[in-house]
Amino acid sequence: MTAGLFVSFEGVDGVGKTTQAERLRDYASCDGTETVLTREPGGTALGLAIRAMLLHGVRGADGTETGDIGPRAEALLFAADRAQHVSQVIAPVLRRGGVVITDRYLDSSLAYQSGGRELTLDDVRRLNMWAADGVMPRRTYLLDMDPAQSHRRLVHDEDRMEAAGDEFQSRTRRAFLDLAAADPDRFLVIDARGGVDEVWERIREDFDGLRSSQVSGSLPTTPATLSRRAGSR
Amino acid sequence: MTAGLFVSFEGVDGVGKTTQAERLRDYASCDGTETVLTREPGGTALGLAIRAMLLHGVRGADGTETGDIGPRAEALLFAADRAQHVSQVIAPVLRRGGVVITDRYLDSSLAYQSGGRELTLDDVRRLNMWAADGVMPRRTYLLDMDPAQSHRRLVHDEDRMEAAGDEFQSRTRRAFLDLAAADPDRFLVIDARGGVDEVWERIREDFDGLRSSQVSGSLPTTPATLSRRAGSR
Repeated sequence: MTAGLFVSFEGVDGVGKTTQAERLRDYASCDGTETVLTREPGGTALGLAIRAMLLHGVRGADGTETGDIGPRAEALLFAADRAQHVSQVIAPVLRRGGVVITDRYLDSSLAYQSGGRELTLDDVRRLNMWAADGVMPRRTYLLDMDPAQSHRRLVHDEDRMEAAGDEFQSRTRRAFLDLAAADPDRFLVIDARGGVDEVWERIREDFDGLRSSQVSGSLPTTPATLSRRAGSR
Repeated sequence: MTAGLFVSFEGVDGVGKTTQAERLRDYASCDGTETVLTREPGGTALGLAIRAMLLHGVRGADGTETGDIGPRAEALLFAADRAQHVSQVIAPVLRRGGVVITDRYLDSSLAYQSGGRELTLDDVRRLNMWAADGVMPRRTYLLDMDPAQSHRRLVHDEDRMEAAGDEFQSRTRRAFLDLAAADPDRFLVIDARGGVDEVWERIREDFDGLRSSQVSGSLPTTPATLSRRAGSR
């Protein structure tokens, strides 16, 4: 199967994912290769509707805001967004041999949604590997920085970040680093304290290497199931 | 754990589930027992929003209707509806010792969503047992009838039923009967060709028996995971 190249950007808010992803999109497309920059949640029309539910909640028939969305329902909504994103956007581009760059993907669900009171890492991974039909990035760029530093960049959004709390941000950073350590073939951890150009040079160099080898392996040859062990490489 | 009694009604459209479920609600509550009649999809505010997505689709930023919802995204949305339904409605009533009667539940996902080109019965069951956190009815009343007969009752809705096709309806009926055969301890299959009173007598008699034994077993003692074999009793 001819397959394109799939890469994702991960990391806590404020580390520069969007800037680097846009730069990579421009770089990857300059020779005419079909290149799509997308994001989660909200990479499709269904995803945007789900994103609105997750961010703003839903209203009951009497117009009042309803209670919280439970942790399982929330994880399932993120997974539904991902399933639609893969089937409508990501897989078609990869099948045509194009490049897909996504600002957040499955690892964000693992880092943010699991590890709480109710949801295990293993369950969230199985759920999402099934949702994504096994479609995983060939490379994940994890932009890593002490959250106390990255938050200073988010002046426009300080209240929300403050509200989330330093401890939460540090725990999420740690979760991303653990995921990277468990899958060194896929992850490239980049110190995001460097300047934008310095970070970009590491990405460009790695991406050139990926392209020249073009062992993309992004599309699985058999459909993902919940029955066999998912998430192992 | 003190637990209430959880029963579900299943079957293809037009077999009389709603009529019998309402009658059972009135019967179960007449001694003052807390009794809730609910349904899927759409038993919560989140569920109603999801139901609207599933029935009417979503619109893109430019206002045009978007393409179909993929099979995995659809199954995940039904599962999200179910997860919220269990955590917000079903489990709280059962914990208080009440009676929950639901018009459709997990078996409808198994009968309608699996068996197609992409989704296996086993995957849809694992997904939904996880979504429902293992909360299963003590009794499922399967109202069974030849779809050609039940459709004659649905005069108000004939177009949609006609569109769905006789073959689809017959396959769904068969799927329900297979589920019942595989779990005879939970299912009671009732010939729905009889009159409303005749069907009701079978349900009332069975429900009296359930109540007197009150081995509800509805609430699992450990949380459901996707890792171990789900769906077995």
